[in-house]
Amino acid sequence: MAANTFGHHFTITTFGESHGPALGVVVDGCPSGIPFDMDLLTRELDRRRPGSSDIVSQRQEPDQPEVLSGVYQDRTLGTPVAIMVRSTDARPQEYEDIARAPRPGHADDVWKVKFGHVDPRGGGRASGRETVARVMGGAVAHMAVSHIQPQVQVSGFARSIGPHTIADQDMATVSAGLGKDVEDLLRSARKEGRSYGGIAEIRVDGAPAGLGQPVFHKLKSDLAAAYMSVGATIGVEFGAGFSAAKSEGTVFHRQPADRQPYGGIRGGISTGEPMVARVAFKPTATVLDAAKKGRHDPCIVPRAIPVLEAMTWVVLADHLLRMRCDRG
Amino acid sequence: MAANTFGHHFTITTFGESHGPALGVVVDGCPSGIPFDMDLLTRELDRRRPGSSDIVSQRQEPDQPEVLSGVYQDRTLGTPVAIMVRSTDARPQEYEDIARAPRPGHADDVWKVKFGHVDPRGGGRASGRETVARVMGGAVAHMAVSHIQPQVQVSGFARSIGPHTIADQDMATVSAGLGKDVEDLLRSARKEGRSYGGIAEIRVDGAPAGLGQPVFHKLKSDLAAAYMSVGATIGVEFGAGFSAAKSEGTVFHRQPADRQPYGGIRGGISTGEPMVARVAFKPTATVLDAAKKGRHDPCIVPRAIPVLEAMTWVVLADHLLRMRCDRG
Amino acid sequence: MAANTFGHHFTITTFGESHGPALGVVVDGCPSGIPFDMDLLTRELDRRRPGSSDIVSQRQEPDQPEVLSGVYQDRTLGTPVAIMVRSTDARPQEYEDIARAPRPGHADDVWKVKFGHVDPRGGGRASGRETVARVMGGAVAHMAVSHIQPQVQVSGFARSIGPHTIADQDMATVSAGLGKDVEDLLRSARKEGRSYGGIAEIRVDGAPAGLGQPVFHKLKSDLAAAYMSVGATIGVEFGAGFSAAKSEGTVFHRQPADRQPYGGIRGGISTGEPMVARVAFKPTATVLDAAKKGRHDPCIVPRAIPVLEAMTWVVLADHLLRMRCDRG
Amino acid sequence: MAANTFGHHFTITTFGESHGPALGVVVDGCPSGIPFDMDLLTRELDRRRPGSSDIVSQRQEPDQPEVLSGVYQDRTLGTPVAIMVRSTDARPQEYEDIARAPRPGHADDVWKVKFGHVDPRGGGRASGRETVARVMGGAVAHMAVSHIQPQVQVSGFARSIGPHTIADQDMATVSAGLGKDVEDLLRSARKEGRSYGGIAEIRVDGAPAGLGQPVFHKLKSDLAAAYMSVGATIGVEFGAGFSAAKSEGTVFHRQPADRQPYGGIRGGISTGEPMVARVAFKPTATVLDAAKKGRHDPCIVPRAIPVLEAMTWVVLADHLLRMRCDRG
Repeated sequence: MAANTFGHHFTITTFGESHGPALGVVVDGCPSGIPFDMDLLTRELDRRRPGSSDIVSQRQEPDQPEVLSGVYQDRTLGTPVAIMVRSTDARPQEYEDIARAPRPGHADDVWKVKFGHVDPRGGGRASGRETVARVMGGAVAHMAVSHIQPQVQVSGFARSIGPHTIADQDMATVSAGLGKDVEDLLRSARKEGRSYGGIAEIRVDGAPAGLGQPVFHKLKSDLAAAYMSVGATIGVEFGAGFSAAKSEGTVFHRQPADRQPYGGIRGGISTGEPMVARVAFKPTATVLDAAKKGRHDPCIVPRAIPVLEAMTWVVLADHLLRMRCDRG
Repeated sequence: MAANTFGHHFTITTFGESHGPALGVVVDGCPSGIPFDMDLLTRELDRRRPGSSDIVSQRQEPDQPEVLSGVYQDRTLGTPVAIMVRSTDARPQEYEDIARAPRPGHADDVWKVKFGHVDPRGGGRASGRETVARVMGGAVAHMAVSHIQPQVQVSGFARSIGPHTIADQDMATVSAGLGKDVEDLLRSARKEGRSYGGIAEIRVDGAPAGLGQPVFHKLKSDLAAAYMSVGATIGVEFGAGFSAAKSEGTVFHRQPADRQPYGGIRGGISTGEPMVARVAFKPTATVLDAAKKGRHDPCIVPRAIPVLEAMTWVVLADHLLRMRCDRG
Repeated sequence: MAANTFGHHFTITTFGESHGPALGVVVDGCPSGIPFDMDLLTRELDRRRPGSSDIVSQRQEPDQPEVLSGVYQDRTLGTPVAIMVRSTDARPQEYEDIARAPRPGHADDVWKVKFGHVDPRGGGRASGRETVARVMGGAVAHMAVSHIQPQVQVSGFARSIGPHTIADQDMATVSAGLGKDVEDLLRSARKEGRSYGGIAEIRVDGAPAGLGQPVFHKLKSDLAAAYMSVGATIGVEFGAGFSAAKSEGTVFHRQPADRQPYGGIRGGISTGEPMVARVAFKPTATVLDAAKKGRHDPCIVPRAIPVLEAMTWVVLADHLLRMRCDRG
Repeated sequence: MAANTFGHHFTITTFGESHGPALGVVVDGCPSGIPFDMDLLTRELDRRRPGSSDIVSQRQEPDQPEVLSGVYQDRTLGTPVAIMVRSTDARPQEYEDIARAPRPGHADDVWKVKFGHVDPRGGGRASGRETVARVMGGAVAHMAVSHIQPQVQVSGFARSIGPHTIADQDMATVSAGLGKDVEDLLRSARKEGRSYGGIAEIRVDGAPAGLGQPVFHKLKSDLAAAYMSVGATIGVEFGAGFSAAKSEGTVFHRQPADRQPYGGIRGGISTGEPMVARVAFKPTATVLDAAKKGRHDPCIVPRAIPVLEAMTWVVLADHLLRMRCDRG
């Protein structure tokens, strides 16, 4: 049933299968008059793209976005903004045998139970390539939020890659990269057929207090749904996260605000302080797939970061609009 | 804006403030012909109720449910099932000063930013008492799932309470309690004004393969939204969870199935294997509230377990119905 | 499936069967800070109530509303507003034979096809008594709209009753009644076992320009859905309505604005001019039901008017909130 | 806000402005395994297309549909089906002055109030060209319904064009055309700058009993919303429609079933009998637009019929899936 739309006021509806003709997004509910920033859109797609360095998959996807609707003279019209990219590196023949032998760690078998078939074209809609559409939708959300609340910033980092944890002081310096140790690890993993899990960290600065609804659409609830809808995720935490579970309350609640024990969210509603979330990823299963040897991602975290950022922008845009209706 | 409904086909809409006249739920989308089990409903409410032992809050809430609609001659009609409980232990006078001084660790201040006021009656809708309505909705979902797929079981445990971790072999024996050490800890915490975080674990056995939708309504995404909508939650993980982030892929994906590395969910869709999720809770903030000394919960996990189970049943009922529309 | 909620931002979820324990509504998305007008609520319920004069059904339903949540110190909290009325004139025994013999003109037979049973208690949820919940939800919408846009007025009239058409000049004078001719017709119809169809007219004055969304949620589309969700409706038209179908364009579009050819809606969006809609009703089928002789409504229009007004307020409240998100 | 999606289980989300780069639809919730009938899709687009005869607008729009996702080896995958057509006859320069002078009878002025701008490109999203996307979505719905319930037929006719009413016996013979009198009327109207309103009739044969939900999603309510979301509509009625308003009940309800007094819907639910609806249209306003002289539609009804049929298929597909969840 209809399950490819995310959000309530500001929504993204995505379509497209890996190796199908195109992937795309329809952004509905984007207010009119938002300056459309084509550079931002292509920059975000480039960040997500595989083949951009030797620590990620070498599959080539130029990902040229085409804006099909909703924008006129560089401003949004208030109508749906549809954007698509065509697939150019499709190699359906290479995937034909998926139909016969479901790949371990992938969803081929459960997909067959569910829909009565497997899309043999590289996992079809279950492929990570689906996230192209999210990144495009997130870019539009980014434009909308930046117009309404220019001070909001979303930034993602790799907090850990397999056994390596990246300390706070290093995260600043390695925002473009991951540090030499980690990059060496990933480079050898790609060549030698290993893969690693990891943890991505998302920070939101400058968000106003009051985002989130009190019961079912708490900000943490909608963010968790957004993050856990990304492939290969296996956990999410806010602020102190799982370590809070071991804490005693009079100590925990009296921490200085800059420790962000709550992750900038209290009662499910943003406090105006910086927000912090961490998302855990499984090691990629593609490593088990002999056919794709050397084309797999040794760790999905670097490429997942722009996707998590995109989903964050969508949740923020949605809740900024929801908040307009809070008071009479 | 409208944000008090959870689910898509099978939905619960909850209402009510702590110390308001009543709390209730409207269950919409429950199929007709489901046997209505009044005992199950009251049993679940009793499990959630404070005052039931000396390790939880001593506030008394008899919580007598009244079925207002949707049931006739002990079967559901296919119409909305509305159930409410009246508040009987309301002490609004005791909370009057909340309006003046927001309580630390609570949402009073952000609520005021958002809605222009604070409900001084014990936190109003931000109170944990709101979960009464979820437990009632979850009980109806439980009845529906049990009728459609009788083999499905949902069970929750305390996996850790503050510094204490409860081992697998102990969880079976302490399903009714928590073990003497933990109970002693909580008893003294309640008396001496301390509180603890903790981790609840939810297991689903007997669920069919195929539950969940591939992109935005992955089963893990909807479960994460459900769990993180419960107050005081600060993290959620499935299967191996955050520990998977440290794993290498050829090892991780070749674990025996009974280790449940994926938590019974692959590609966002249930595999038919047992499902496992863990939810982390902050220490209760009420411990900071001098006015409620001795009436606070020293750890919210024991009382949150029936709430997490209830939300699990709702997600399962919703996805069992969604699944009916997967194929032509 | 879940189908008992109407609206998107401002929603009403209704529950209750005729002769069940209670009927009620949960209003979600009502902004905080709206003055709650209890008199308005009871006044609207009184207008809908049968037994209020000898031209409507003589069934007695005192309909005492009880506000269960969402209101504190006479203002809305921004949380769901739940209101219910208990059933007091329930005579389930009288309806027992419905289970055996579906009533002609009613939905008993299709209900059975659909849900596998018939609720024998006076039609259950298919009964006109369900509209009590709509009137309560509409009263809250009325309060919200009046606070946000105080100049908005909604008023309903009987435009025709069976063969009698009520002219413009008479409508003003008979707003409380229907004119002596029509009242005589209905009085004799009730005694002699006849019933009539009729047409209700709804006017909205003072609504701002810009309400309605351009494609699927045109204001006329949402109003039509609202009106056609009321029992016994069989048609709806706006402005010139079906007579426009016979018109030539250069004449039609050059009519003076006070003729309201478009009904105050152009391109699906309110123009700021008065809005006019008419709703056609079938004759009540209860007239065929020997068991209810003398307790039937000889024409449903007089009692349907407060229901149509209520649905109009809900649509207006919903679109006033939607409009807040139109621009960046 | 998000308002470009129609349906609940089976949904269409449309995008595109007249004279923008493309128009398209994302069909979400279409079950897997539906045979995809490309001929049906292009045939329906051809029926809607202007320029196909001399009684409709002479604007040329080849409307070549491209399926972007959701179909593999001629079967639906259960993933979103996205289809688009590119605009080829765009003449934006011709419309530049709309920005300066809103066209009478169009929505230019209210659109400006709402969104702060007018899309000068032929009305943008408010243009009738938007219906291309609906026809494509309706074609997919048609394929789905035909697979699930092969006996269902939807057929549309012109019931009246301006002053001409087309009798039952003629409707059969003029299904391809409209009869010589009417065609002459339209031909001269186009040349001489006149336009007419009219009434379209939609019949559904072979639909099962039980479609529709009892309260807010009555079949007649969802159909009315669907029809009234089409541009230039001004009224809708079912079965006997407005004439029922003049009837007496003991006569009305005892009519033979083949007279279809209820339009095949009782209590809001389909009875299994043929369904009949009629939709009234205003005369097109384009006739007032000197710039478009000779390119206007003299009556929109002939071109609106495939659009109304498309919306009917969407509602039927949605309710066929909803019905799967009615019983436990």
